[in-house]
Amino acid sequence: MSQPNVVVIMTDQQRWDALGAAGNHRIRTPHLDRLAAEGAFVERAFVPVPLCIPSRAALFTGRYPSRSGLGPNSGFPLPVDAPNVASTLRAAGYRTILVGKDHLFGGEGLAHHFDHVVRYDHAGRAVDEKADAEERALRASRQGRFDEPFIERDAFDTAHSPTRRLTTAAIDAVGDAHARPQPFFLWLSYPDPHPPYVVAEPYASMYRDHDLGMPATRPGELDGKPPRQRLSHRLMGTADYPPRDLQRLREIYYGMVTFIDDEIGRFTQALDDQGIGGDTIVVFMSDHGDYMGDHGMVRKSPAMYDCLVRIPLIIRWPGHISPGRIANTLVSSIDLAPTLLDFAGLPPLPAAEGISLAPLLAGRARAHRDRVFGLYGSAGDAVTDAELAGIDLDAFRAEPHPWMGPLAMRGRMAMVRTAEWKLVHHQGAPGELYDLHADPDELINRFADPACIAVRAELMGSLVDFLLE
Amino acid sequence: MSQPNVVVIMTDQQRWDALGAAGNHRIRTPHLDRLAAEGAFVERAFVPVPLCIPSRAALFTGRYPSRSGLGPNSGFPLPVDAPNVASTLRAAGYRTILVGKDHLFGGEGLAHHFDHVVRYDHAGRAVDEKADAEERALRASRQGRFDEPFIERDAFDTAHSPTRRLTTAAIDAVGDAHARPQPFFLWLSYPDPHPPYVVAEPYASMYRDHDLGMPATRPGELDGKPPRQRLSHRLMGTADYPPRDLQRLREIYYGMVTFIDDEIGRFTQALDDQGIGGDTIVVFMSDHGDYMGDHGMVRKSPAMYDCLVRIPLIIRWPGHISPGRIANTLVSSIDLAPTLLDFAGLPPLPAAEGISLAPLLAGRARAHRDRVFGLYGSAGDAVTDAELAGIDLDAFRAEPHPWMGPLAMRGRMAMVRTAEWKLVHHQGAPGELYDLHADPDELINRFADPACIAVRAELMGSLVDFLLE
Repeated sequence: MSQPNVVVIMTDQQRWDALGAAGNHRIRTPHLDRLAAEGAFVERAFVPVPLCIPSRAALFTGRYPSRSGLGPNSGFPLPVDAPNVASTLRAAGYRTILVGKDHLFGGEGLAHHFDHVVRYDHAGRAVDEKADAEERALRASRQGRFDEPFIERDAFDTAHSPTRRLTTAAIDAVGDAHARPQPFFLWLSYPDPHPPYVVAEPYASMYRDHDLGMPATRPGELDGKPPRQRLSHRLMGTADYPPRDLQRLREIYYGMVTFIDDEIGRFTQALDDQGIGGDTIVVFMSDHGDYMGDHGMVRKSPAMYDCLVRIPLIIRWPGHISPGRIANTLVSSIDLAPTLLDFAGLPPLPAAEGISLAPLLAGRARAHRDRVFGLYGSAGDAVTDAELAGIDLDAFRAEPHPWMGPLAMRGRMAMVRTAEWKLVHHQGAPGELYDLHADPDELINRFADPACIAVRAELMGSLVDFLLE
Repeated sequence: MSQPNVVVIMTDQQRWDALGAAGNHRIRTPHLDRLAAEGAFVERAFVPVPLCIPSRAALFTGRYPSRSGLGPNSGFPLPVDAPNVASTLRAAGYRTILVGKDHLFGGEGLAHHFDHVVRYDHAGRAVDEKADAEERALRASRQGRFDEPFIERDAFDTAHSPTRRLTTAAIDAVGDAHARPQPFFLWLSYPDPHPPYVVAEPYASMYRDHDLGMPATRPGELDGKPPRQRLSHRLMGTADYPPRDLQRLREIYYGMVTFIDDEIGRFTQALDDQGIGGDTIVVFMSDHGDYMGDHGMVRKSPAMYDCLVRIPLIIRWPGHISPGRIANTLVSSIDLAPTLLDFAGLPPLPAAEGISLAPLLAGRARAHRDRVFGLYGSAGDAVTDAELAGIDLDAFRAEPHPWMGPLAMRGRMAMVRTAEWKLVHHQGAPGELYDLHADPDELINRFADPACIAVRAELMGSLVDFLLE
């Protein structure tokens, strides 16, 4: 067997349930649903940290973020000598291509590890000597608008939008790569549906006034939750959003996802048109989720809720991966690097902590993980209510990205999640314990509940095991 | 104030309670008792790992063993560039001296960090070009006899024994150092009462047929304890010792301690005779303990019992440290490096994790730590009973130091100990929980006891905090 091509399609900030195949009947993702039906659809997949850079590091290195050479927050870039999937495939003869958002390797790393790069960020095509006037104008219409609730009207139509243009660039890159003798690795990395929340027509109006369901929260939800979440709620909360704005935000977010879905359909059709769909492993995933109103918040914050850490994950390789749903076992995104190298017949990355999914995906194994872990936050004790009371949060809130400032990040978090329970330890502060069977939306913290103390003790022991590894 | 001299007197494998001042009325340690009365006697002091090399690393670096550049087991030597008390004091102008056992720095490190070295190991004066025929004969009488229950008759009399001779060397080194303008740091490091268990007369007969109390164990003690302890018990157990042999071993061990005590008395008298006792910080401690029959075992094994991790600790500095017992708070040996540098007016070691005892010792603070931590063992899941059943333990036992072989070391341990409770987590295996108030000898494992589950959950959370630091 010759080595398969590898395509990792990544979206940024797409919730696990912003996908029809995940049981969401309110969103239209027919192309991803078809990919899910043709490949393995992993229902319970998680990133170890719900933040762009360290999550991407986990994907490429197969290691937990605090151990990959990056911190658990926003250390950047990945050290150029850190073993990773791109450099390993390239060393094995693959042509390596990035089309879209990087936020991991940086300029030097991209130059080292990729043969071909067409880089986009959240404002559009990354400006370099090749950018034309239209691209510069597009960037100007989006730049610096990350913290706006949403942008009602996109400056550009779909034909000129980044999502469309980078898909076209990816199709062109695949055509070029297919004409060469070696296999290729493509990281097709959509910057959306990350903020700025904006999409062109027809997607901007596609969900207007649709019933998108109610965000998952409840009155008094913050009672009994860690003080850090009261801070996040003050910074990222929707309390001062008119209900109409929250609805509109969600409409636009869904529109962004459906636009990407259409483009992914165009991309996979191009693979099939070129006759290489069968020789190509296609992974679809996101790097983390988005509150989208859940827990009374938008965007993200230092927290380990499923709406942030759970991701959509599809892996298709016709003839090698049995199509079907994988619902009975848990998967971490650190497992993907070992899986891809395993499929490519290459040895595992040095010090990788992930476990290859190949036995599971080939139907040779039924179980993979009974628990996944997460790490996030900076050293120190997490914020207290007394400390919060002394802070001018309005001034704080006016700073750029306050939700990832030192105050919000302080206090490392460690998460363990099984099929039934989630425990989140906060350094120097009370933790969180959720009964996911009774409370899948994680609205009631059972950490201090005497009825759950045995579960808490068992899961704390599991975290100690994890941290001792 | 000019900088004080610093003397660290260390014994090897002396239990915390092999000391009159600790309330043991069966042992004679009048000179240490006097030192304890003149200085601060820390009743609850602990090493983070009960093994020579990493414990010494913790003392000199102020870091937990797995973070000091050494593994939690027997990595050796300390990297020559690891910041440590000896190199820091030397860089600050101190004359640095080792007389006795090293087991930390190795030849290159000693050459880098010490001005004067008179090295002894467990067989006597380390053989080098300076060793005379008598020293070579002494070594031959002890070498390779670590695993014998005890040696009834010492080949040498006290006048020629290592304990006597290295004390004389230390007194000479202090006299030489005192004649120089700079302050000195002396590590006076007795290889005893570590095996081989042997001592000359009158100490060999000093405790003959004395009532030394009963070792702390009970029938069925191993029930409900981790499988690793069943392994240790097979390797280090006293089940096949005639009771007379166990008694004799303890008599000789006590004799070794009393011999050292007399020599420490001679050393401190020499300090006073030279008029430098008042300008000299004297620390007395051991690097870990010894089962001495407790838990049905002798020597040591990968375990976190108090008889192994709790140490005697005395710190005397007339006029600066208030004499008295410190009984209400816990101290870790990683706190000593920060303390000594603090007293010497020097900045803390980079990355030191210990906390200076200076405020406590000067009477400016009442509390220090409410819990201490420990780390030990190698990566992997600890041995299981099923695995033990398949092993020829007799063959295993015949190997040198089987108790620190891969099978016994496998599975990291993490310990947290408060004044009232001790939790020991074993990687991939059930743990240990002891109610130290009701069960100070740690004979009943409460880990699986539902009545203790809240304590277990709280202490597991404390371990997670510790490991996230």
